[in-house]
Amino acid sequence: MVGLEISKKSDSDSIKNNRLSDAVINLDQGDPTAFQEYWMKMKDRCTVVIPGWDMMSYFSNTTDVCWFLEPELAKAIKALHGAIGNAATEERYIVVGTGSSQLCQAALFALSSLSEVKPVSIVAATPYYSTYVEEASYLQSKLYKWEGDARTFDKNGPYIEMMTSPNNPDGTIREPVVNRSGKVIHDFAYYWPHYTPITRRQDHDLMLFTFSKITGHAGSRIGWALVKDIEVAKRMVQYLTINSIGVSKESQTRATTILNEITKICRNKSESFFEYGFEKMKSRWERLREVVDSGDTFTLPNYPQAFCNFFGKSISNSPAFAWLGCKEERDLGSLLKENKVLTRGGDRCGCDKKYVRVSMLSRDDDFDIFLHRLATIKDLKCIKP
Amino acid sequence: MVGLEISKKSDSDSIKNNRLSDAVINLDQGDPTAFQEYWMKMKDRCTVVIPGWDMMSYFSNTTDVCWFLEPELAKAIKALHGAIGNAATEERYIVVGTGSSQLCQAALFALSSLSEVKPVSIVAATPYYSTYVEEASYLQSKLYKWEGDARTFDKNGPYIEMMTSPNNPDGTIREPVVNRSGKVIHDFAYYWPHYTPITRRQDHDLMLFTFSKITGHAGSRIGWALVKDIEVAKRMVQYLTINSIGVSKESQTRATTILNEITKICRNKSESFFEYGFEKMKSRWERLREVVDSGDTFTLPNYPQAFCNFFGKSISNSPAFAWLGCKEERDLGSLLKENKVLTRGGDRCGCDKKYVRVSMLSRDDDFDIFLHRLATIKDLKCIKP
Repeated sequence: MVGLEISKKSDSDSIKNNRLSDAVINLDQGDPTAFQEYWMKMKDRCTVVIPGWDMMSYFSNTTDVCWFLEPELAKAIKALHGAIGNAATEERYIVVGTGSSQLCQAALFALSSLSEVKPVSIVAATPYYSTYVEEASYLQSKLYKWEGDARTFDKNGPYIEMMTSPNNPDGTIREPVVNRSGKVIHDFAYYWPHYTPITRRQDHDLMLFTFSKITGHAGSRIGWALVKDIEVAKRMVQYLTINSIGVSKESQTRATTILNEITKICRNKSESFFEYGFEKMKSRWERLREVVDSGDTFTLPNYPQAFCNFFGKSISNSPAFAWLGCKEERDLGSLLKENKVLTRGGDRCGCDKKYVRVSMLSRDDDFDIFLHRLATIKDLKCIKP
Repeated sequence: MVGLEISKKSDSDSIKNNRLSDAVINLDQGDPTAFQEYWMKMKDRCTVVIPGWDMMSYFSNTTDVCWFLEPELAKAIKALHGAIGNAATEERYIVVGTGSSQLCQAALFALSSLSEVKPVSIVAATPYYSTYVEEASYLQSKLYKWEGDARTFDKNGPYIEMMTSPNNPDGTIREPVVNRSGKVIHDFAYYWPHYTPITRRQDHDLMLFTFSKITGHAGSRIGWALVKDIEVAKRMVQYLTINSIGVSKESQTRATTILNEITKICRNKSESFFEYGFEKMKSRWERLREVVDSGDTFTLPNYPQAFCNFFGKSISNSPAFAWLGCKEERDLGSLLKENKVLTRGGDRCGCDKKYVRVSMLSRDDDFDIFLHRLATIKDLKCIKP
């Protein structure tokens, strides 16, 4: 039995933590450790036991296009999407990956290798997930080429638009912006009811999801793609076969257990992970807005309310990252770093350095210290360098 | 307590299996399911139990160059190499990967991105591991280029030689062949005492190992690199960070448990995995040679005996793959396929189609059926097409 007691440290606790700890707070990566307290309360309900002789083969199901996908994980993924209502799984191939990063690269390989003209342009509307740039560039592939902001993209020829909704880093709800006859990779890492209202059942050609950002199990490195076209699915599997000969069976088994549990209890108000996660994120956003609104230094995006089909009520976005801005023209990332808070600079997301991406998924202690340090900077009125 | 009872099916059992089963036997991949019987006998000695709240973070050790490497796995790897005496681990960085395939690609990225001149040529002496060709080619990187057989390689400029010893597919003991001032990736996947005599403690700049081919746990997708140069290690970690944001913690934890156990009992004759594995492989090779030698159709390489420092006696190679040849000029892969045995054609390894690579690590039943079918082909005197 899991209660929904969201930890709210008092100001005095927070200040004490700050005095005690002079440590650098890393809110650059989106390490989703915020949710660990939920899993602690679940005690042994999602414990997995793996004997030494189990899961030894490379193969999970030789009759599946994705031959290294555990059939029970495929079932768990379908059941979860069915219960949440966030994505269609019918008439689709499921491709499992070592996190959705690997799947994103598998999708770039699949779509570009199937294109007659190469290199295929890769674009994303700013501010974009900075890792897309690295994923599309690091190997200097002749198959595809990073071309930056989708909004100013005007090249002819084939293209792939990376579309993240709610968007990483700024939490906005998005649609593709190029709208020619290119391909779109729909990254729905954050399209879950603790982050955003579930307004429709997504039904696109290639959709990516990640276990990390649903339940917080980033260490497992499990992601999946829902793919309509069998040729695309086959090429993605080809990529994953050459890249890593499939995906950890231990992680797949654990993800199966955990996804099945959150599906089973998703309508139980006192136990549901999504109820817990929603309250947790909502509370953190309220506290962050309180600090930001009490001064005249920082900005945050505002999100419209929308009716969430899962919760059956109108709710707002509580994104996994805060897209924090500075009202004056200065390098906000450096300012925060001077104050021992590491964030991701807006320049890495194709934007101005006056913005930073801040993880909202840290442990409670780190979040408290972050708020306290932010309040301290605010008091300094953001002195110009 | 694990006995070393190697399963030796009688001829009549084998024929019965063959009659009962008309199934295609897949000996193309080296799926190491042969060793499962050992782990069944170990019962719950290597069982791992993972609670739902554990291993949630991306990070394992932020002070390590390889920040996603579990410290306990690093210790287990060092202890195992120390006990077996097959590789030096001192003054080296350990980089963990999703199998050694991913690490091989991380190494290609690291060495080529550090090279002033690009693309860097990638070579391997024939017959080579066919997957190297795919790994070096599929993304059409501008950083490196597959250039085929190392023996005929005569281009100027930087190169990387892939060197596998004992070699996959033909089991021979190898040294680099280009011997200019290039880089060498030493793939020691099979440099373990159940496959080959341990004649020296390997001590090279970049050495690859894989959990799959030691204990048979291919489903875990765990490999590691021992790397001397910190800049190379950092670039490999950069590759793994972009490619998959690290490696499954569940698999790392399980590998730790299993590697620690085989290290602990490696000198106990009745329990040692390596004693078991050595007898198992030796027995399979004796049975295969018996079938091959009783006719005039097929060929197998001969391996010299050498003193094994681990076993303290002179032994021969019992490679994980048989490099089976046909005395007449014909497509041996097709001939075997007609007889419902899938193997990897020698042409994929840069050689003639009269050779095939046959996995020696299948389950007992499949190995028995393979031998029986091979004996049947032999009786047909390899009729020309």
